[in-house]
Amino acid sequence: MKYKVVFQITTADQEVQQAMIRQLFNLLVHFEATGVKVEVVVHGQAWPLLLAHNNSFLTDLQDLEKKGVKWLLCGNTQRQQDLTVAQLLPFVGIVAAGIGHLVERQQEGWAYIRSC
Amino acid sequence: MKYKVVFQITTADQEVQQAMIRQLFNLLVHFEATGVKVEVVVHGQAWPLLLAHNNSFLTDLQDLEKKGVKWLLCGNTQRQQDLTVAQLLPFVGIVAAGIGHLVERQQEGWAYIRSC
Amino acid sequence: MKYKVVFQITTADQEVQQAMIRQLFNLLVHFEATGVKVEVVVHGQAWPLLLAHNNSFLTDLQDLEKKGVKWLLCGNTQRQQDLTVAQLLPFVGIVAAGIGHLVERQQEGWAYIRSC
Repeated sequence: MKYKVVFQITTADQEVQQAMIRQLFNLLVHFEATGVKVEVVVHGQAWPLLLAHNNSFLTDLQDLEKKGVKWLLCGNTQRQQDLTVAQLLPFVGIVAAGIGHLVERQQEGWAYIRSC
Repeated sequence: MKYKVVFQITTADQEVQQAMIRQLFNLLVHFEATGVKVEVVVHGQAWPLLLAHNNSFLTDLQDLEKKGVKWLLCGNTQRQQDLTVAQLLPFVGIVAAGIGHLVERQQEGWAYIRSC
Repeated sequence: MKYKVVFQITTADQEVQQAMIRQLFNLLVHFEATGVKVEVVVHGQAWPLLLAHNNSFLTDLQDLEKKGVKWLLCGNTQRQQDLTVAQLLPFVGIVAAGIGHLVERQQEGWAYIRSC
């Protein structure tokens, strides 16, 4: 895969979350021919985006996951918010440290997009 | 050109836009001896920054353009906001997808600055 | 040192500053075995974070500095805010241009995290 990008989102603002989701769909269309690896690191105040219940973006998240987008929750945020795996969407992955993962990915050659 | 950087701005907040413009001037001074390639990808709510009429930053944008800064509007934003080329400053370029361009530039070795 | 990361912070919002400080501590733990070089470029409205007096994050900043985090103020911000070296924490470094430094570090292979 030639293109690889990791997104970071920390806000609870649903307009920003909606904008990021729209960008992810646009990005997949843009790289349809070449392919693209996409991960989204969710931490800080953005964690409700990954909840299994009462999630306003459920269909979009499932759709993006089927198209290959990986949804990753920061382990520190999970601990701080006391979130069980059962409370999260079934396809959510946990990374030990959100920022640590963003640093590792960039140093492996991934692009970085800050969604705010 | 040794240094290459792509900025991303998505906010309608004119204070943030003003701060980015100041940073661009400072950056050009900083890299006066070595040279620097600079692009600004404008999308989301930041599109009024590129309007031809009633643009409070007109002189600065023209000035930066003359110094080599490339102003790029996201094609998805253009479509969503229904903007004609005639409504935009004459030197504005359109990229197919703003995020796609930011990913491509980073993977070509450009630095990335998120202006918010 | 395998991992190198430069943070950028421009906000006066103490909740965001607090979140970044927590992230820095988590990052140092995450890379305890491999080691990590960390710099924080402070500019825009975030400069009060580096003041020597009435600094609510004093202990954390000192602690992070002892663990190797470098705190860097943008020279343009210093000039705009008319800040003397005596007003700043003794371990604060000054870089000629904040954005210039962020571009240089990324092109030297450092990862970039935008704290907002």
